Amino acid sequence: MREIKGGEQMSRANLITDVAGVLVGNAQDARIATGVSVALFEEPAVAAVSILGGAPANRDTNPQIDGTVEGIDAVVLSGGSGFGLDAAGGVLARLRELGRGFAIGPARVPIAPQAIVFDLLNGGDKDWGRFPPYLALGYEAAAQVSTRFSLGTAGAGYGATTVDLKGGLGSASAVTSRGHTVGALVVVNAIGSAIVGEGPHFWAAPYEVGDEFGGLGLPSDIAERARKLAWKGGAQPATTIALVATDAVLTRAQARRVAVQANDGLARALRITHAPMDGDTIYCAATGRLPLGEEPVAALTEIGSVAADTLARAIARGIYEATALPFENALPAWRDRFGGGVR
Amino acid sequence: MREIKGGEQMSRANLITDVAGVLVGNAQDARIATGVSVALFEEPAVAAVSILGGAPANRDTNPQIDGTVEGIDAVVLSGGSGFGLDAAGGVLARLRELGRGFAIGPARVPIAPQAIVFDLLNGGDKDWGRFPPYLALGYEAAAQVSTRFSLGTAGAGYGATTVDLKGGLGSASAVTSRGHTVGALVVVNAIGSAIVGEGPHFWAAPYEVGDEFGGLGLPSDIAERARKLAWKGGAQPATTIALVATDAVLTRAQARRVAVQANDGLARALRITHAPMDGDTIYCAATGRLPLGEEPVAALTEIGSVAADTLARAIARGIYEATALPFENALPAWRDRFGGGVR
Repeated sequence: MREIKGGEQMSRANLITDVAGVLVGNAQDARIATGVSVALFEEPAVAAVSILGGAPANRDTNPQIDGTVEGIDAVVLSGGSGFGLDAAGGVLARLRELGRGFAIGPARVPIAPQAIVFDLLNGGDKDWGRFPPYLALGYEAAAQVSTRFSLGTAGAGYGATTVDLKGGLGSASAVTSRGHTVGALVVVNAIGSAIVGEGPHFWAAPYEVGDEFGGLGLPSDIAERARKLAWKGGAQPATTIALVATDAVLTRAQARRVAVQANDGLARALRITHAPMDGDTIYCAATGRLPLGEEPVAALTEIGSVAADTLARAIARGIYEATALPFENALPAWRDRFGGGVR
Repeated sequence: MREIKGGEQMSRANLITDVAGVLVGNAQDARIATGVSVALFEEPAVAAVSILGGAPANRDTNPQIDGTVEGIDAVVLSGGSGFGLDAAGGVLARLRELGRGFAIGPARVPIAPQAIVFDLLNGGDKDWGRFPPYLALGYEAAAQVSTRFSLGTAGAGYGATTVDLKGGLGSASAVTSRGHTVGALVVVNAIGSAIVGEGPHFWAAPYEVGDEFGGLGLPSDIAERARKLAWKGGAQPATTIALVATDAVLTRAQARRVAVQANDGLARALRITHAPMDGDTIYCAATGRLPLGEEPVAALTEIGSVAADTLARAIARGIYEATALPFENALPAWRDRFGGGVR
């Protein structure tokens, strides 16, 4: 029996950029109410993906993730549904300027897998003319990557919603008992809810570190409130898309295991997820700074488990940090309904 | 926005056999401390599988589940690790006597996918001679299928363990708001724990119906206790394997969606799961008595969500109903540690 205190130690900024080699940039369009987030890796990262949603939309994901080229340069998360898949093109344009990409003779082709969320019915003006804004937004997000970035109504989370509250962009980080840093970046646009019943408690409360999303714990009548099974009506698509990253040295198969296990964070932070119209997609990227060590299976088990916890925390933070869109009938933010003074 | 009270109404016996067309039989060997559980479908059922563990072992699963033959006759869950995969052979022998199976001219080949758990280090006498007992146990379990069967230390759950308590065989059922019955059958042999910290509270408490596993709710200091990340040591395999069944008319793709979504029940009832040495495998079978109706996506979303809840409940019931194995140093049962008087 192995007993550790996993995920207890919060990293420096409690952002995915606490993982060495990961930078993040956001760009958004307030009128259209959408945006793009880019995670750029300082060196090509070993990556894998787990797509457990029933209605996913991705670009450059399966062929690249499972193909010959092992290192990826960036992961792109955006709004815009299928239209949003232009964003990776803007990221590639920026990576080309930086001289990044897989070398084929003197040519270089950057690798930037992408997932999207459906934010076409959030009140924004989607009458964008002939071409949607995502190519430009992708470039802009990639051009301003940094170790610091905004959460909540920002980047790809700008136009995101859940069934009952404004969604958003979330992030969190942790360090395992063996010293591997694990971080998560997530766009919370879930079909269901991140709060128990009518709120304010978050489903992710058991995994909260400090009071990073209010420190409210769980309600005593949770079994009664949990009976509520609410989701966006009809067959409206919804999605939670994420990147989990670690500084561990992982093979692609190990990264795939972490991506699969990280889905448990969705299950624990959201009711419901992985549904028929969800496009839930989780990337895992390993920046390869710290080997797994002498007990690789145990180290990997811990990284995967902490990745699930960290992603659950990032989901709650995305909701907690969000502000409402300035449109009539827009969904309220968590702080609008439950008060911002908690912080 | 759709709001329903899903999974609130418990079916008659709170067993997977509340789903019309599903029968279950158990067989076990006390000396070896192992067993087999069989779910037999009265008519061939549409089925699918979701294998999210990192170290699965299965028989007649992917080719049959994804192949040309759509109807399956039974699902077999057993102990014995790789040796246990003989059990499906015993089930086929029984199905052959019953005249069941896919017809190829006058020949009939029954279809019985199987998953196993690793129970080779539970204190039982694994010195079984040349051939292991699983062929005979599979036959015996299939020969005594019924609408009533034992939970806890029974069938494939006989030798099952978790990191801190005796594991077992669990089951539960529910009826959706649209009238579809959903049931779960699970062998809880998890790498981690079904209880929060040192217990006695179950992770599945938010989904409990009545006091089916003690009615204890969750502890108020859950965030503190949740920090514990404990699992079976070294690279020991562990696994939670399950069948979720419904009387809905589903296509194979729809059954696959329910199997994927049911994994959320593992994530919510166990800490941890889907780990590198887990063989976590979930089958879904649809007995096709009640069409999805005029809103098929919504009906399917509800069935998948209720399947996740029902599987979480079944996991807790499997632990709650277990009794300890009669060996020195055997893991205690939940009732041994926390009292049986709660019931």
